[in-house]
Amino acid sequence: MPEWRKDPVVDRWVAVSTERAKRPTDYRPPLEQKKQERCPLCEGHEGDTPPEVLAFRKPGSEPNRPGWWVRVVPNKFPACRVEEDNKMTRKDIYYTWCGVGAHEVIVETTDHEPNLINQTEWQVAEVIWAWRARSLDLRRDTRLKYISIFKNKGSVAGASLEHAHSQLIAIPMVPAEIKEELAGVRAYREERGRCVYCDVWQHEAATGERVVVEASHFISFVPYAARFPFEMWILPKKHQRDFADIDEAGVRDLAYVLRESLRRLAWTVYDPPYNLVLHTCPVNDVAEEDYHWHIEILPRLTIIAGFELGTGYYINPTPPEMAAAALREAGKWCPEVISAVQEVRAGV
Amino acid sequence: MPEWRKDPVVDRWVAVSTERAKRPTDYRPPLEQKKQERCPLCEGHEGDTPPEVLAFRKPGSEPNRPGWWVRVVPNKFPACRVEEDNKMTRKDIYYTWCGVGAHEVIVETTDHEPNLINQTEWQVAEVIWAWRARSLDLRRDTRLKYISIFKNKGSVAGASLEHAHSQLIAIPMVPAEIKEELAGVRAYREERGRCVYCDVWQHEAATGERVVVEASHFISFVPYAARFPFEMWILPKKHQRDFADIDEAGVRDLAYVLRESLRRLAWTVYDPPYNLVLHTCPVNDVAEEDYHWHIEILPRLTIIAGFELGTGYYINPTPPEMAAAALREAGKWCPEVISAVQEVRAGV
Repeated sequence: MPEWRKDPVVDRWVAVSTERAKRPTDYRPPLEQKKQERCPLCEGHEGDTPPEVLAFRKPGSEPNRPGWWVRVVPNKFPACRVEEDNKMTRKDIYYTWCGVGAHEVIVETTDHEPNLINQTEWQVAEVIWAWRARSLDLRRDTRLKYISIFKNKGSVAGASLEHAHSQLIAIPMVPAEIKEELAGVRAYREERGRCVYCDVWQHEAATGERVVVEASHFISFVPYAARFPFEMWILPKKHQRDFADIDEAGVRDLAYVLRESLRRLAWTVYDPPYNLVLHTCPVNDVAEEDYHWHIEILPRLTIIAGFELGTGYYINPTPPEMAAAALREAGKWCPEVISAVQEVRAGV
Repeated sequence: MPEWRKDPVVDRWVAVSTERAKRPTDYRPPLEQKKQERCPLCEGHEGDTPPEVLAFRKPGSEPNRPGWWVRVVPNKFPACRVEEDNKMTRKDIYYTWCGVGAHEVIVETTDHEPNLINQTEWQVAEVIWAWRARSLDLRRDTRLKYISIFKNKGSVAGASLEHAHSQLIAIPMVPAEIKEELAGVRAYREERGRCVYCDVWQHEAATGERVVVEASHFISFVPYAARFPFEMWILPKKHQRDFADIDEAGVRDLAYVLRESLRRLAWTVYDPPYNLVLHTCPVNDVAEEDYHWHIEILPRLTIIAGFELGTGYYINPTPPEMAAAALREAGKWCPEVISAVQEVRAGV
């Protein structure tokens, strides 16, 4: 059973594997993933994964058989899982939290395609619906306090499988990052009486210099203090604390803005590895603190090194305004360019 | 001139390059560093770097010429540098801090050797003396509030040069990470009347299960909630807030514990890439808050991915107790093993 351990000084929890622990010899280089012979996420290989917890599938098709277009399964090697008990224990000066949690994989397509942007907008919308459905289902377990939805694209960004997929980890505590954002939202509202994220997107829309894609309900832009070159944030224009409150028009609009932003990223900097992280409000939160959910796209073209790890601050070699201009410009290119840049990346 | 930009929501500053900005085409893969034809850090190539700010050198040898054994130079591509002014400006909803700072490179050896552990203990002590001398010199500029000393080993950990070196970045603000640790130290002292770091090392020394190397004045151990497999912390046993207060016996002892810990890491998991970060108290700090300085060694065998970036929490696949046992065991091996594992790593 994996266990959560708290750092004795700061608010930092670590999920420590105890069951399937990696021994020193498991780190023998090369550390790069090997080409998988058989992908467990492809249609027809449903038996290679634990049984599905959700699938959007053709009427009449059987669970854990072909016929789906988006499928969600428990992670075979979970960082945490839902256990019976949910208790914090103290060993002398250290705190441990046992067991409760969930770790799931959202399979974004039936075919062995690594790139979400090669899917239709409709398919991207279906992935968003799956995120929403799992978020709503998991929060029924009131011990869970946060549902982290993210996507690792490329091995440099932490993907261990090539097939396009996102992940969900539900945990019994509110993460430090989200707590900090909640405090930032609160402080800004106390000072100025408004939502900081609302002010940010309105400011970006008005000046336009860092905007990448703008639609009716969503806007993507390079943030003013971007940590990573070509980092993008996608915000709903409507003040909404909970991602799961998204409606049908919202999903359709987000699918367009998300896919278009990712396409431009791929065209501009050679289909780079990236992490996508959905930031939303805690669940089963009595206080119901104010928040404004959003998506952060974090390209991994630079390395998080000693300075970043030691200070929590970043060095970004590409000015956000230059990045945004290039991403906007990419929208004017012929979409066929992407196959060429993907070849470049694949040849690495 | 690089500028510091603050995130509008959380306490996160980013140094944005504006002068030598990287354009989209600079990210064309492969992103791996090319073998340098001529290393600017080697003895005899002193003219390839900006003029030295410090060098330990043979009596009678001239500055910026051979004859040194540890040399400190300004970074040719600084993330920040010491400028005339030090002002925070506000552009509508965003804050910027202009210019003040320093970015230096500590060259750890004259020969083109990537690995600090292949130096003598004496040489490692000289590197520590150089860190201390630069920290003491830079703090004379009272606008600087923190001096971050770190080391990136291997390109995966962010090293852009192979030749063994560490870096120093001095900034006009106290980093978020250090602020959090200061708050943790304060809270623990209020609750229990003691220093949390003192309690941690004493607890580790008493149980022994996570200890790697113990000497008279320093101890290294795998922390209870290690973020990374084989992560190690090195603490002075004496309660000391400021690294620069280290004395001669301390430097000698730290050189032994640091080198021995890094050697065991190399032997245990195939000479991995790592970041080393020195955590110490702020400088020019009127409040003089309580702290306990230490070194963190962060091996880069796992990838910081969406979950870590989105939550600030980590997943560690190797239990700290297993890592510590392997690192202790490595101390018993024949040191010649290292040349074999280095060959494995070099072959990647």
